[in-house]
Amino acid sequence: MSAEGQTSGQESRAIQTFSFEIHARQGRARAGIFYTPHGEILTPVFAPVGTQATVKAVTPAQLGDLGATLILANTYHLYLRPGEELVAEMGGLHQFMQWSGPILTDSGGYQVFSLADSRRVDEEGVTFKSHIDGSEHRFTPEKAIAIEESLGADIIMAFDECAPPNDRAYNERALARTHAWAERCLKVKSRPDQALFGIVQGGIFPDLRAESARFISSLGFPGHAIGGLSVGETKEEMKSILDLVDGVLPEGKPRYLMGVGTPEDLIHGILRGVDIFDCVLPTRLARHNAAMTLTGRLNLMNATFGRDPKPIDENCRCYTCQKFSRAYLRHLIVAREMLAATLLSIHNLHTLVKLAGDIRNAILSGDFEEFAADFLNRKVWEESSETSFEPPGGE
Amino acid sequence: MSAEGQTSGQESRAIQTFSFEIHARQGRARAGIFYTPHGEILTPVFAPVGTQATVKAVTPAQLGDLGATLILANTYHLYLRPGEELVAEMGGLHQFMQWSGPILTDSGGYQVFSLADSRRVDEEGVTFKSHIDGSEHRFTPEKAIAIEESLGADIIMAFDECAPPNDRAYNERALARTHAWAERCLKVKSRPDQALFGIVQGGIFPDLRAESARFISSLGFPGHAIGGLSVGETKEEMKSILDLVDGVLPEGKPRYLMGVGTPEDLIHGILRGVDIFDCVLPTRLARHNAAMTLTGRLNLMNATFGRDPKPIDENCRCYTCQKFSRAYLRHLIVAREMLAATLLSIHNLHTLVKLAGDIRNAILSGDFEEFAADFLNRKVWEESSETSFEPPGGE
Repeated sequence: MSAEGQTSGQESRAIQTFSFEIHARQGRARAGIFYTPHGEILTPVFAPVGTQATVKAVTPAQLGDLGATLILANTYHLYLRPGEELVAEMGGLHQFMQWSGPILTDSGGYQVFSLADSRRVDEEGVTFKSHIDGSEHRFTPEKAIAIEESLGADIIMAFDECAPPNDRAYNERALARTHAWAERCLKVKSRPDQALFGIVQGGIFPDLRAESARFISSLGFPGHAIGGLSVGETKEEMKSILDLVDGVLPEGKPRYLMGVGTPEDLIHGILRGVDIFDCVLPTRLARHNAAMTLTGRLNLMNATFGRDPKPIDENCRCYTCQKFSRAYLRHLIVAREMLAATLLSIHNLHTLVKLAGDIRNAILSGDFEEFAADFLNRKVWEESSETSFEPPGGE
Repeated sequence: MSAEGQTSGQESRAIQTFSFEIHARQGRARAGIFYTPHGEILTPVFAPVGTQATVKAVTPAQLGDLGATLILANTYHLYLRPGEELVAEMGGLHQFMQWSGPILTDSGGYQVFSLADSRRVDEEGVTFKSHIDGSEHRFTPEKAIAIEESLGADIIMAFDECAPPNDRAYNERALARTHAWAERCLKVKSRPDQALFGIVQGGIFPDLRAESARFISSLGFPGHAIGGLSVGETKEEMKSILDLVDGVLPEGKPRYLMGVGTPEDLIHGILRGVDIFDCVLPTRLARHNAAMTLTGRLNLMNATFGRDPKPIDENCRCYTCQKFSRAYLRHLIVAREMLAATLLSIHNLHTLVKLAGDIRNAILSGDFEEFAADFLNRKVWEESSETSFEPPGGE
């Protein structure tokens, strides 16, 4: 068999490996299954973020117990530390961090561009300084894909430029680069056991977003991401961009809304055809003593919880809520015990993972539109506008 | 039934509840079972320390998985924060921290006396300042027992004075108080579902230790502790005190060597009739990046482990060793990820809990003396002399 024949054989296996089936729709919302070499992802899905090859304060066993299927890791962080070659030498990211389910890596684009003063972009790539030691590094589309191939996640992301959402001139320049880079990523991508997703950019500008969705869709990626949202734009802007992009992206491929978000953001996204979400919010809030529930946020440092024997959420089936009182959690926080972060992370992650699962069931049973209307009427999480990506230095 | 009749009925139930059976002996080493209201303790046993009602960085589920049966909590810390009344209101320590197995609380004596400049002792008790906020508090034998009864552990300790081991005059005065306080503790102790252990003191002075062991034994406690060791004396002094005390304490009751220790200390103690050990060493070393194995200590921060695919200990069956490489653990440490402390704590605790269990099996099969000789010949942990109690401010 010729080298060419081998390649196309690998490609057809890859396409099969990563098939996406939509089992039910309600409005534009979809309930599906995305097949990966490390297992099925039932969509819609919320992916916990394991920036440095660990979802902070939680073991892989606890992650599995709380219902996670897909998790995310950050290419920028792992490239700098411990280095993608070390991860590859240790058998790849699944083996290294002992997560046997599907993993997604971003491309490092967002982190590099958020380094503001310590990076220089040109048409070929970006030169930047490490947030750890100030050393100089350079990412190109080719380099990002090479790193992601060394890491070995199931879903890998194209290298893109995430511009400030309101700067038209910047977004025009960045979009041209993002599109050129998407083609370069596709060209060098070689592993058949990884699915490369393209990323739609364009800030808050409808014409740029439409152009980007059309162009990225035309390249034949097995899945598409919507980047550059939840980075400072308003909720209304986010929703209208999602409406627009939803109308352009091909229906039969999974859509991933990067770095989003709150429970309400999940619902807004799913109402607009999104299948995959990730966000550091659950684990970051946990480390800041806040519990997420579908009826709001509890700051467990608050003295009112000091003698409260109830769990965080009486309806929640997570380990934390099955076992521990608010009074105990508050004690751990006040006493600065690490277990507080672990127990709150378990609860918060479970809340979002289960919300995505409940929405999936509602789509399958035809109840999602009612579910979404009820939820959004409560406006519990609407005021929340924290940036939900992990910054390079990342707490 | 008269009040008196009721009391003696409760007492006889208490004695039954806390029966101690010795199933095998080899030399002076014993393999037994101590029955408590929250389950059997197979002895010899190593008890992880959960100072503030949490074994640092580990969930109760993980503690159970690693084989822990008995755990310890500190009265001084829980009295100050969150307060014993709150723990009682939440259903007691087992319910509060969700440990369904046996718990032991110390009396706060050691912590209070280690406050050096901020405490004043008199014949009635000790006045001291909180390490948290400097507020003034007072412990008496009666107060310590009242706190321990509110906390509700299965095994509670008498309030004692732990003197510097080499100061003869101080030890004489302290011993008189410790003995008077032991009687006062017994007098006020009222819960039949708790076993109160007496504590033998006397520093490094054989005559004081013998006197203390005789006096404490005469009071009819259901178990005895040896306090004031592993606090600065030499290993030879510790061993000769253990030899001496072993000859005086009644055989049929469990003996607890407080705050000890390393793997070799466990063997030295068990060779001298000790049944119960506790120590912060495994969790403290874990938070300082060190793994305990029976062949020595590994500092996982060391660059030599950076590309090491092996587990900490290839013979270990703990979650950490079954799953993770030294390279991954080093990465977590270098990246300052909390998971490092969790995974190292699981491993270190498992190492000591399993060592005690292996020794028990060796006693049952008649192989302990050979096991002990082999182990001690290696002198792996002999040089180690860290103070093994949790100081009030505790890292």
